[in-house]
Amino acid sequence: MTLPSIAAPYLIYLGDTPVAELAKTGAGLAFWRPERCLAQLREPGCAADLGLPDMDLAQAAAAGAKTLVIGTAAPGGQLPPHWAKRIVEAMEAGLDIASGLHVPLRSNPDLAATADRTGRQLHDVRLSGGPFPIGNGLPRSGRRLLMVGTDCAVGKKYSALAIHRELQDRKVPATFRATGQTGVLIDGHGIAVDAIVADFLAGAVEQLTPAAAADHWDVVEGQGALIHPAYAGVSLGLLHGAQPEAFVVCHEAGRTELSGFPGHKTASIGEIIELTTILSRRVAPNIRCAGICINTARLPEAEALAVLAEAEAEHGLPATDPVRFGVAKLVDHLLA
Amino acid sequence: MTLPSIAAPYLIYLGDTPVAELAKTGAGLAFWRPERCLAQLREPGCAADLGLPDMDLAQAAAAGAKTLVIGTAAPGGQLPPHWAKRIVEAMEAGLDIASGLHVPLRSNPDLAATADRTGRQLHDVRLSGGPFPIGNGLPRSGRRLLMVGTDCAVGKKYSALAIHRELQDRKVPATFRATGQTGVLIDGHGIAVDAIVADFLAGAVEQLTPAAAADHWDVVEGQGALIHPAYAGVSLGLLHGAQPEAFVVCHEAGRTELSGFPGHKTASIGEIIELTTILSRRVAPNIRCAGICINTARLPEAEALAVLAEAEAEHGLPATDPVRFGVAKLVDHLLA
Repeated sequence: MTLPSIAAPYLIYLGDTPVAELAKTGAGLAFWRPERCLAQLREPGCAADLGLPDMDLAQAAAAGAKTLVIGTAAPGGQLPPHWAKRIVEAMEAGLDIASGLHVPLRSNPDLAATADRTGRQLHDVRLSGGPFPIGNGLPRSGRRLLMVGTDCAVGKKYSALAIHRELQDRKVPATFRATGQTGVLIDGHGIAVDAIVADFLAGAVEQLTPAAAADHWDVVEGQGALIHPAYAGVSLGLLHGAQPEAFVVCHEAGRTELSGFPGHKTASIGEIIELTTILSRRVAPNIRCAGICINTARLPEAEALAVLAEAEAEHGLPATDPVRFGVAKLVDHLLA
Repeated sequence: MTLPSIAAPYLIYLGDTPVAELAKTGAGLAFWRPERCLAQLREPGCAADLGLPDMDLAQAAAAGAKTLVIGTAAPGGQLPPHWAKRIVEAMEAGLDIASGLHVPLRSNPDLAATADRTGRQLHDVRLSGGPFPIGNGLPRSGRRLLMVGTDCAVGKKYSALAIHRELQDRKVPATFRATGQTGVLIDGHGIAVDAIVADFLAGAVEQLTPAAAADHWDVVEGQGALIHPAYAGVSLGLLHGAQPEAFVVCHEAGRTELSGFPGHKTASIGEIIELTTILSRRVAPNIRCAGICINTARLPEAEALAVLAEAEAEHGLPATDPVRFGVAKLVDHLLA
């Protein structure tokens, strides 16, 4: 099967989100894929601004917008009725809809009926799509790099996008492979692997990262952590399906407890290198750690640099904060 | 939530299965849960015989049967029309229906309509049920033993059922916990964990094996293998969710390649002990291997005994073929 793609350019819907920080998805889109973002649509009272032109539905449709992407979290995870009304109007104006909200668009009867009537597509990127094949674990061509973490939410998506951009800047053929809902919205393509039935997870990742030219890199977003009490199975299925020749460990400086899982310590970087290497023996026996990405946002610059220097000394690998210091030296090492 | 239970006693439906070996589910039911099996129902030409009394639907209903369990694989995985007709009649006679077939009962419009009209339940044990919570990985009371394998289909279910029976014979409080469709049909309770959305797998297993009395054993059926290219994520989620204090490695003598996965070697027993121990560090830091179960059906008895003796010498643990030699010494070691 072909994975569905979300048609660009996008009109990013920010609703009347009362807190700018809730518009993280929209901000990620505007930062990583500006060429896919035509404009933003905001309701009165919206606190967010992505720096894109403001357009209403008619203007955006006339300017060629193909999809209204919901670029902000909804209060309580639900879809407010006045947002749903605007989404109906967007379909009537000729736009598809893409959403990473917890509540599926199609569960709203008005949206489902309008989609059926207008023929527009509803992309719920938290739903997995499929059907997917069972994994086969056989070797395939192409180069693959996977982000792995010491916890959830430590910067795996950001690191993958930054490395992908750096490879493209160096004219190295590369594709970003989204494995979570925000990544799928940003890239317009991918699979939210945590929503897949467990038996098909590795097979879905094999399909997401297919055989490619020998010099082509798939840069694969990571999920969870191999030590995570709830999500380790997802992380392992992703590792086996991706068959990466290299991985990058992502970590947040100073985090000692798993986010949202009180009583569980985060993994050390060394522990994740060890587990990733051991668990790759069968499908990627020559796997190597290409470097370390550490989120140092909470530290002053001098301390951040000290943390990175310490990690480099301990592991003998390049360590960087991709937001602060870029990923050039990590990509140097990857390609060396 | 409470996990659904399949009401006993059962009338086991064998259809007109042309090959007795296809009736493995029915045979497992009659062997492991004879007290739940009232009778069998066979169509003309059926090659299987479970040694149960033959009854038609009226006789079985009058004798108190509560559920018609489909005890055989269907040709090509589909439901033959004359079987579907019999299932409709069973609901009209007052019986629920339970099935582990690939095709869901409810996908057949006649069966769905009859269930809605009669109020009978359709148990499709390959569907996961739910919703399930996210795992929390916190310690809980009770003792838990998990089967782990060097491959799929090496005897994990049989080993778990045999150990559970041995514990019960010794008056040790114990519950068998089914994690696959056949196990769920046999026990009337459980979760087919491979059908669960990956994010919820560990949480579902936590729910399946809840906190219990300090001296109570949950004997948990295993799935897949930690080295399996398609299913390792399922195995790891199951391990983390179960938090076992002990595990039994299940293996088939002489198997060198993963079943159905050409080009992939099976794991060694030692490799599975190592991986299970390493991957339990966080949720079950004191985990120990309680013994080894080896399927030696293809070997003459002298060779089988030699294989078991070799495994005992290599690992310093009791090794048995549960079918041939029982699990007494393994349970001795478990309880020592």
